[in-house]
Amino acid sequence: MYDETNVFARILRNELPCHKVYETGHVLAFMDVMPRSDGHILVIPKAKVRTIFDIADEDLQHLFRAVQLISRAAMEAMSSDGVSLIQSNESAAGQVVFHMHVHVIPRWTGVEMRPHTSAMEEPEVLESIAARYRRVIEQMDGR
Amino acid sequence: MYDETNVFARILRNELPCHKVYETGHVLAFMDVMPRSDGHILVIPKAKVRTIFDIADEDLQHLFRAVQLISRAAMEAMSSDGVSLIQSNESAAGQVVFHMHVHVIPRWTGVEMRPHTSAMEEPEVLESIAARYRRVIEQMDGR
Repeated sequence: MYDETNVFARILRNELPCHKVYETGHVLAFMDVMPRSDGHILVIPKAKVRTIFDIADEDLQHLFRAVQLISRAAMEAMSSDGVSLIQSNESAAGQVVFHMHVHVIPRWTGVEMRPHTSAMEEPEVLESIAARYRRVIEQMDGR
Repeated sequence: MYDETNVFARILRNELPCHKVYETGHVLAFMDVMPRSDGHILVIPKAKVRTIFDIADEDLQHLFRAVQLISRAAMEAMSSDGVSLIQSNESAAGQVVFHMHVHVIPRWTGVEMRPHTSAMEEPEVLESIAARYRRVIEQMDGR
């Protein structure tokens, strides 16, 4: 069921670059290159997992612990008013890359999300936001 | 920050009814009365938690373990092709009830989700679907 050639598998193997925000032995968080809002992050397990249906309990726990951390960081790094989490399983639900991922999307009052897979963001913009997240996460770790 | 009078707090105190699907010492799952698709479930922690920002680690782990169980059950109970998970934090993200909840939304190929808070479903329909979920979950527990 798991396709080794999917884009996130290639990012995990360092065959493709990403704007990294956070990494542990179990998870990786990086910028979505087609953000639905400024500061839109993807959090993925390092395990070869297609959907929530097939993720092992330990990986699930690590994944959502990281999602919580990134959500808290988003509020601070992006000065957002809220955070939307979206996790899509299978094409019928809008899944495009078949490695499980959680979207962490900063939200501001009165601002709609942009459509899914709309426009590619400039790398310099993504890298600048990623650096802001990394600083906030570093500060949070120190508390 | 936590408002004791929110609707889910009242459901947890048995002051309001719900179409229950699953319950443990840590979580409750029940039918969304304004479903974005047939079989739309809400999974909530029993702890007094407003958002993902303030949930304790243990409650977070129990919550997403239950979300995984309900997602698997949705595929079987609803014969769905996929599942969308949505979790909204604060009004800016569309949160309406200020007790943390995860939406588990069965999806079918080519069928869009209905808008958020659109139409109230008939109680008999909700109860019939809830019963279907309960049967599937009981069978899954036996495996």
